[in-house]
Amino acid sequence: MHLLHSELSLSVILYLLERAEYMKKIKTGTMLKDKIMTTIFYEPSTRTKCSFQADMLRLGGSIIDINVDQSSVQKGETLEDTIRTVSCYSDAIVLRHPRKSAVTDAAKVTEIPIINAGDGVGEHPTQALLDLFTIKNELGLGSMTITMVGDLKNGRTVHSLAKLLTRFCGIRLIYISPKELSMPNDIVEYLNPFIEQRTDVSLEDAIKVTDVLYVTRIQKERETCEYEPYAITPELLKSAKKKMIVMHPLPRQSELPPDLDDDPRAAYFRQVENGLYMRMAILDYVVKKF
Amino acid sequence: MHLLHSELSLSVILYLLERAEYMKKIKTGTMLKDKIMTTIFYEPSTRTKCSFQADMLRLGGSIIDINVDQSSVQKGETLEDTIRTVSCYSDAIVLRHPRKSAVTDAAKVTEIPIINAGDGVGEHPTQALLDLFTIKNELGLGSMTITMVGDLKNGRTVHSLAKLLTRFCGIRLIYISPKELSMPNDIVEYLNPFIEQRTDVSLEDAIKVTDVLYVTRIQKERETCEYEPYAITPELLKSAKKKMIVMHPLPRQSELPPDLDDDPRAAYFRQVENGLYMRMAILDYVVKKF
Amino acid sequence: MHLLHSELSLSVILYLLERAEYMKKIKTGTMLKDKIMTTIFYEPSTRTKCSFQADMLRLGGSIIDINVDQSSVQKGETLEDTIRTVSCYSDAIVLRHPRKSAVTDAAKVTEIPIINAGDGVGEHPTQALLDLFTIKNELGLGSMTITMVGDLKNGRTVHSLAKLLTRFCGIRLIYISPKELSMPNDIVEYLNPFIEQRTDVSLEDAIKVTDVLYVTRIQKERETCEYEPYAITPELLKSAKKKMIVMHPLPRQSELPPDLDDDPRAAYFRQVENGLYMRMAILDYVVKKF
Repeated sequence: MHLLHSELSLSVILYLLERAEYMKKIKTGTMLKDKIMTTIFYEPSTRTKCSFQADMLRLGGSIIDINVDQSSVQKGETLEDTIRTVSCYSDAIVLRHPRKSAVTDAAKVTEIPIINAGDGVGEHPTQALLDLFTIKNELGLGSMTITMVGDLKNGRTVHSLAKLLTRFCGIRLIYISPKELSMPNDIVEYLNPFIEQRTDVSLEDAIKVTDVLYVTRIQKERETCEYEPYAITPELLKSAKKKMIVMHPLPRQSELPPDLDDDPRAAYFRQVENGLYMRMAILDYVVKKF
Repeated sequence: MHLLHSELSLSVILYLLERAEYMKKIKTGTMLKDKIMTTIFYEPSTRTKCSFQADMLRLGGSIIDINVDQSSVQKGETLEDTIRTVSCYSDAIVLRHPRKSAVTDAAKVTEIPIINAGDGVGEHPTQALLDLFTIKNELGLGSMTITMVGDLKNGRTVHSLAKLLTRFCGIRLIYISPKELSMPNDIVEYLNPFIEQRTDVSLEDAIKVTDVLYVTRIQKERETCEYEPYAITPELLKSAKKKMIVMHPLPRQSELPPDLDDDPRAAYFRQVENGLYMRMAILDYVVKKF
Repeated sequence: MHLLHSELSLSVILYLLERAEYMKKIKTGTMLKDKIMTTIFYEPSTRTKCSFQADMLRLGGSIIDINVDQSSVQKGETLEDTIRTVSCYSDAIVLRHPRKSAVTDAAKVTEIPIINAGDGVGEHPTQALLDLFTIKNELGLGSMTITMVGDLKNGRTVHSLAKLLTRFCGIRLIYISPKELSMPNDIVEYLNPFIEQRTDVSLEDAIKVTDVLYVTRIQKERETCEYEPYAITPELLKSAKKKMIVMHPLPRQSELPPDLDDDPRAAYFRQVENGLYMRMAILDYVVKKF
């Protein structure tokens, strides 16, 4: 099993949102005592790996990290064999891999839960769930305009969040990106029956009606040519609503200048903290279920 | 102290086999509560390091990993000084090193137990013990023919297993390898008083009388010239006994094609799981003894 | 908050020395149960990182390590953003960074305690505290002559120790180093009101009156040109007092030949062990205080 969006029914999403709220209250527990979670990251990450590790520890469990550079991958082992081996030692695996669908392939060879921590330009479902939890906490989950800015082609977090939003009513999406980095067609089509999507609005106009401004960085590691990132300046935010939020999956670069950090609408570090609680909820859910 | 074969009497081996069986039953315990195990791997490894870490956690202890690339080795520290330092913090050290006898040298400068997790082309005693545990579990430890296939020169797992088998009666060994990668003379001579060893049998003939087919990969990191690996195909296994097993220390390459995995005689992933229990038994034994 | 010398009053120092003594007695505890410590090392280290990890585990807490090579640093994240993120998951951060004052900058963006584990040629306060604890344990903290030998320019441990010594009476310092690697002026001036400092004594003469010989290695990673290190040979120690000690922050190179190790005055491995207890005291102090 791995956490695919399409597999997440509204009832599971609502359950996880509620459990994340509960985790925020208790902060530590013993639900996963004697359980071992292994992280395997074929791509660098601070916050996702570190967040999952802290979550497991907070739930009373233990962690093992496979340092991919040091590991048998160097001896030519396939992902499937690595997963089979690690499954013998672990109660859950958190996997990040540069290849789209790698996590789906990995899940086929094991009985223990595999959590997708990002598969290339594919998905990043736990980020999408924590984003949703942040939106719920900050604004509630009613009718709203969400503007996604930046690299919408390679940004797997926006793909996953957009798909997740189809489970809710009253969402309107505005996309703002360089033409070469626009939201992929398959995602647009997947969303089409559920969500109004617009690409013909300028950032300056969009900002006035936006409830959630979801900013992503231009991913230099996936693109060869250079794009000038959109910069969300304090100046730009002057025309924004008083009650709106700026989100970002982080790490950020120049698209979010540090002088924005003190604006109460800058929600990206609260978003990091929410990740802690949502991932506690997810871990507890998948490990217990299996 | 480090786990050398020559130091392992039959009574210790039988004790460890029994304890591994016990660990398989309990799966987790608190025998090593408050104990800290440090892993130091100068060569890459997934399963050995990860297995020891999971074992320590399952016994209630804690783990520290020294990332050799990041460590003081870069500042020119000797292995002996590193061991002396780490000994101040730890209750046991698990060491893998590319140099034969490095673990023996390391054991001289410390009072805490050091477990040899592989020293170059030297030994790999915990792998040998888990191999033995697997053979006992799958076939019992009676008279049998064990055929070792692949790189018998650099494959430290076959060296260690062969030595360990001298403690038991009724074992016959068949070696199948390129001439340049044949079993080293000192091992052959060590075994000679105890075990019948044959090198004049073809893989096709050997397979018919084999109870344990122990396959190893050609270690590209130790050999400069290229050898065509022996491939253990489902076709080849047609002439094998109904009740025999195929083992491999993993990671594997083309010598074990994936279409073999569903054959019930393919024991290599059960072997990985057995490693978990045998290493729990070993850890418990050496830490408590000291 | 981070542990700067100038912030450490004599009463805190004395408290920590007493607590370290207590930690030496109890060896393990549960004071930091449910607490998570994250280590972030931008420079290699065995003993400092490993010591802090063992300490946290001995106090009942858990550890997370950020492998800087693998982390978001590669995606261009600032130190401040990394600290902000990690703060969401952790109860304490142990940070080593090549830039002087980096730890001070980091401490500005977080509410949780940050422990300076070395910032370039800046400071290394926990090493200084453990050095002090060692001197107290071996000789008591009365009048004494401390001779510092080696790279006094880049050796942050001698900077930190010298500053800490200003809190005590009756200390005389002798510096012995190549001219280009002499004690920085700002440190000499900081110490001047409190401590007699001499640079005009030869190693041969100094050794006769020395109570603590504090040796450091020439740091090849910070200096481009090569210096012949001072070698503290058994021959040289013949003219030393019977009751004196040789200390070294380790790792060592040729400046401390291994044939010195058996001399009872060689205190450097006892110093490592003392580090364990002092860092337990420090961790307990800073985590509880916040």
